[in-house]
Amino acid sequence: MKLTPQAKGTFAIAPTPFHDDGRIDDGSIDRLCNFYRDAGCNGITVLGIMGEAPKLDGEEGLQVATRFIRSAKDMQIIVGVSSPGFAAMRSLARGAMDAGAAGVMIAPIPSLRTDDQITTYFKQAIEAIGDDIPWVLQDYPLTLSVVMTPAVIRRIVMDSPSCVMLKHEDWPGLEKISALRGFQKDGSLRPLSILTGNGGLFLDFEMERGADGAMTGYAFPELLIDVVKLSKAGKRDAAHDLFDAHLPLIRYEQQPGAGLSVRKYVLQKRGIISTSAQRKPGATITATAKAEVDYLLSRVARVDRRANLQPQSSAAG
Amino acid sequence: MKLTPQAKGTFAIAPTPFHDDGRIDDGSIDRLCNFYRDAGCNGITVLGIMGEAPKLDGEEGLQVATRFIRSAKDMQIIVGVSSPGFAAMRSLARGAMDAGAAGVMIAPIPSLRTDDQITTYFKQAIEAIGDDIPWVLQDYPLTLSVVMTPAVIRRIVMDSPSCVMLKHEDWPGLEKISALRGFQKDGSLRPLSILTGNGGLFLDFEMERGADGAMTGYAFPELLIDVVKLSKAGKRDAAHDLFDAHLPLIRYEQQPGAGLSVRKYVLQKRGIISTSAQRKPGATITATAKAEVDYLLSRVARVDRRANLQPQSSAAG
Amino acid sequence: MKLTPQAKGTFAIAPTPFHDDGRIDDGSIDRLCNFYRDAGCNGITVLGIMGEAPKLDGEEGLQVATRFIRSAKDMQIIVGVSSPGFAAMRSLARGAMDAGAAGVMIAPIPSLRTDDQITTYFKQAIEAIGDDIPWVLQDYPLTLSVVMTPAVIRRIVMDSPSCVMLKHEDWPGLEKISALRGFQKDGSLRPLSILTGNGGLFLDFEMERGADGAMTGYAFPELLIDVVKLSKAGKRDAAHDLFDAHLPLIRYEQQPGAGLSVRKYVLQKRGIISTSAQRKPGATITATAKAEVDYLLSRVARVDRRANLQPQSSAAG
Amino acid sequence: MKLTPQAKGTFAIAPTPFHDDGRIDDGSIDRLCNFYRDAGCNGITVLGIMGEAPKLDGEEGLQVATRFIRSAKDMQIIVGVSSPGFAAMRSLARGAMDAGAAGVMIAPIPSLRTDDQITTYFKQAIEAIGDDIPWVLQDYPLTLSVVMTPAVIRRIVMDSPSCVMLKHEDWPGLEKISALRGFQKDGSLRPLSILTGNGGLFLDFEMERGADGAMTGYAFPELLIDVVKLSKAGKRDAAHDLFDAHLPLIRYEQQPGAGLSVRKYVLQKRGIISTSAQRKPGATITATAKAEVDYLLSRVARVDRRANLQPQSSAAG
Repeated sequence: MKLTPQAKGTFAIAPTPFHDDGRIDDGSIDRLCNFYRDAGCNGITVLGIMGEAPKLDGEEGLQVATRFIRSAKDMQIIVGVSSPGFAAMRSLARGAMDAGAAGVMIAPIPSLRTDDQITTYFKQAIEAIGDDIPWVLQDYPLTLSVVMTPAVIRRIVMDSPSCVMLKHEDWPGLEKISALRGFQKDGSLRPLSILTGNGGLFLDFEMERGADGAMTGYAFPELLIDVVKLSKAGKRDAAHDLFDAHLPLIRYEQQPGAGLSVRKYVLQKRGIISTSAQRKPGATITATAKAEVDYLLSRVARVDRRANLQPQSSAAG
Repeated sequence: MKLTPQAKGTFAIAPTPFHDDGRIDDGSIDRLCNFYRDAGCNGITVLGIMGEAPKLDGEEGLQVATRFIRSAKDMQIIVGVSSPGFAAMRSLARGAMDAGAAGVMIAPIPSLRTDDQITTYFKQAIEAIGDDIPWVLQDYPLTLSVVMTPAVIRRIVMDSPSCVMLKHEDWPGLEKISALRGFQKDGSLRPLSILTGNGGLFLDFEMERGADGAMTGYAFPELLIDVVKLSKAGKRDAAHDLFDAHLPLIRYEQQPGAGLSVRKYVLQKRGIISTSAQRKPGATITATAKAEVDYLLSRVARVDRRANLQPQSSAAG
Repeated sequence: MKLTPQAKGTFAIAPTPFHDDGRIDDGSIDRLCNFYRDAGCNGITVLGIMGEAPKLDGEEGLQVATRFIRSAKDMQIIVGVSSPGFAAMRSLARGAMDAGAAGVMIAPIPSLRTDDQITTYFKQAIEAIGDDIPWVLQDYPLTLSVVMTPAVIRRIVMDSPSCVMLKHEDWPGLEKISALRGFQKDGSLRPLSILTGNGGLFLDFEMERGADGAMTGYAFPELLIDVVKLSKAGKRDAAHDLFDAHLPLIRYEQQPGAGLSVRKYVLQKRGIISTSAQRKPGATITATAKAEVDYLLSRVARVDRRANLQPQSSAAG
Repeated sequence: MKLTPQAKGTFAIAPTPFHDDGRIDDGSIDRLCNFYRDAGCNGITVLGIMGEAPKLDGEEGLQVATRFIRSAKDMQIIVGVSSPGFAAMRSLARGAMDAGAAGVMIAPIPSLRTDDQITTYFKQAIEAIGDDIPWVLQDYPLTLSVVMTPAVIRRIVMDSPSCVMLKHEDWPGLEKISALRGFQKDGSLRPLSILTGNGGLFLDFEMERGADGAMTGYAFPELLIDVVKLSKAGKRDAAHDLFDAHLPLIRYEQQPGAGLSVRKYVLQKRGIISTSAQRKPGATITATAKAEVDYLLSRVARVDRRANLQPQSSAAG
């Protein structure tokens, strides 16, 4: 099923699991899919920035996406196709859609500066991949150094009918959600799904500002799902209570550069991926950091028993 | 009293208070000093990045620093003297020391890239201000785009006997504290105070990694002081319990660009500064954001009654 | 006489001359003014990027500007007032105008990214300095990392009646001149003087694209003046012949970072400034580089006898 | 024949020729190879920054490299394999060597800052591609924003016996060549070929500083070859006379972003590539710019009759 502007809920940003020798770990991909489905995710986003996508060559990228798509069954898969060039972007986008993806996600290249450069870039990108593929606009200035105003996002969306979703991770970004929702109220912007990233660090208020859900890789997607639901149900205090219990760990996981090693460590502890290995260049997690994460997990577990993890020896074999 | 490598505890990063028309607000400076003293701060850092220092001209900078120094009485004042040029840096540094500052703080200019460029820059800076002024090295890659390895920090410190402190706000930065403390254990680095910034977002673990205290501008310095003390006393769970209660607000305040408007809003609510005005260009805080902060304050107040603020109308007049 | 949109010809970008110990060298300022007047310059721009402006503190900046203004007599002086903050910008701008400057020049701060950020910045800058001061917009992406489209420049100019000139040094920038002149033809942009920088590297074609003259610091302003005049007179081949004879040296002088040391060396050789000293941090010119410049000068002198310099011992004492 | 540290002379940086519809133009590749061979080039570098390499997907990259290798026959081909990830770098590097390449060229990824990050990156890159492939280190700070000191280059070279060449295009960079040659004199650096880029803008002096030749894409490789030879033969004035005749065009071609469109236009005029088309995003050359290039060509032709090009209608069909 293809992605639409009505998409909502929680899309997990999946890491790409590797074996210790750097080969892609298909078994862990299958377990990740089961895990996300059991948790109640609405979809999975693969080959994002946290998915180590640039470390895969073209064939590997399609191979990973395809494995996720098959294993995810009825869950929607969004495939990150950001690339320095449109030829590689097109190859992966068309290949992924042929394999059954629900849509693709595109981030701007870091050299873009002016409003016109940004809007032209996305026009050319959609020309390249074809206007029949539903796509997600990724807005992530902290990492990409490209700054898009709400008005520029509106131009991109209005220029491209196949743009169905914004992955919002400007930082700070709460006012941006309000501005975009304001554009929709005044009729200048058409319907658009807004899912938020930034490791979940502001999910509590992002929902209140009008987000449709979360798209991030926190190792407890259950928490994202619950906060989204509680917030949608208007249970503000309950949403914040639960969110706040996880916030110390969310914050720890959200550290740029180091966060992925934390996330993979927790997913390994949860028995989902078989090892926390990253391809080079990648951060490793020290023994001290592991102990800090373990301590944070034990504290989360006082409130949320899903964080009550077995010792690491029980990891999937 | 001059700053030494034995400095520890909590140094508040003070905002520069303005009247609504942009004039410097001396009365609010005095109230800030009393507030920080009453809270138990060990010192105050003025004219830092959050102190809107680049918005002051040379005379105003010295005027603000002097007012803080006089009003602070026995508290140590560190004056930020970072500047695009050494002449302005020297003027302010010597003027501030003559007025009674405990030391100065220097950040690298954003164009520095190689290890040698960085170490040469600090050598020339100290030549310019004189080697008789105790100084704090500010390491803030997220904002300054200058990346210093632990080994480069060691070179800077070992080259300059007057360097007494590191303001640590690399992000992520926990491993950097461990690396520097490791250098001291192996004898390759002399004693050095390490106070941590980043809005306090990682203070809990920074203390456990070996920091000597906090140097940041969170609007509840009482919290920083308590966490530093509990952590030093080995009361780990108590330190984290208190820290976690404030974390949702700490996180909200730490948003780059927007954070200062939040901080000034809370300090105004607390009756300490008379208005949250910033000089241009500056972020303003929307009504929605104010309501979010108020909600966060009410939640903190459930655990820490110091956050139980009177309505804003009681702010200092 | 104040600067107007009708300004044209050649404005020399003056270096700031220092003594070897770093003090400002007033005698060399006077000789520079005489030199530029005798050469036939229409004006002088001081405290630009090549003028080491950030290395002066606030008082020194005004002192240098004032000395140039007095010494320049009837020549127009434009004072660079770019600054990280508006308070310092205002102090220098008002002080310089009071001392008799013809106008000021403002470059954007490097952090600006979006079209709106850029136009807002200049609006606030003009609010700060006052709308009664004629000002020059500096467009220098290579060094400042701020990219302004022709449409953004038009917005800035149309928003601010006191903007009278563009210092054009986008690179590449020929099409930008054509685009702006096109805006004027279609009536969407009012009259605006365009003088070009980039060390003169493209002056030949910039004139043909519609520039009104040169504003750069090549150590032979006579060449700039002649090329501007020949080009204005429609003597295309003659303009290029002369330009091409100097191009090897222009190119050598235009090297980012190193160029100022070359320029000061040549001006010293010409007997105008007493030493090539820069304030720290600054590049020095090696013996090999000096010999290369001497060789280039000897080659220029075959065509243009003004480059037939006496040995360096004859420099002003 | 594999590349060695004794390589010298002129390696042309080849553009990747496309048909107007974006397909790779194999016929033009063959003509380029013949052209470079007839001109006397020692080798060809393909898939460099000017080769639009990021616009090709993985298969296309290898296909282009292979076509060049076959068509070049006895000329050495160096293949640019720079990539955001090591998997794609390895695929292309091994594929190109299997197809008969003489070596590969690697540029650093733009995010590298510290000396250690840079040296570690190249260590991991060589681990990835294998230490049996001769490789060229590309040092191009202006475009890549990575700054390597001479000492860092020395560490990289001494750490990796398979590094045989530096493509030098620091800017300014003359002192860097002198520093590296100085390291070799003092015995701290082993033999290393240094070929220079930067569009040839400083080739005259780069040769005198100790470069072994040129590696750049100026559309008259004959000029590069002649300057290299004259300089090696100690005919200084003759080398500069010829160089200076071409400098106005070299300068015009070297404009960042726009230069490739000029280069392809001239190669098309010379009848070598069938169209000047670039893949998107790419600059186009305006009619005014074409006329400027034509004028420059006519001026070069007064001195160097090889620039006396037939009208464009004679381009290869």
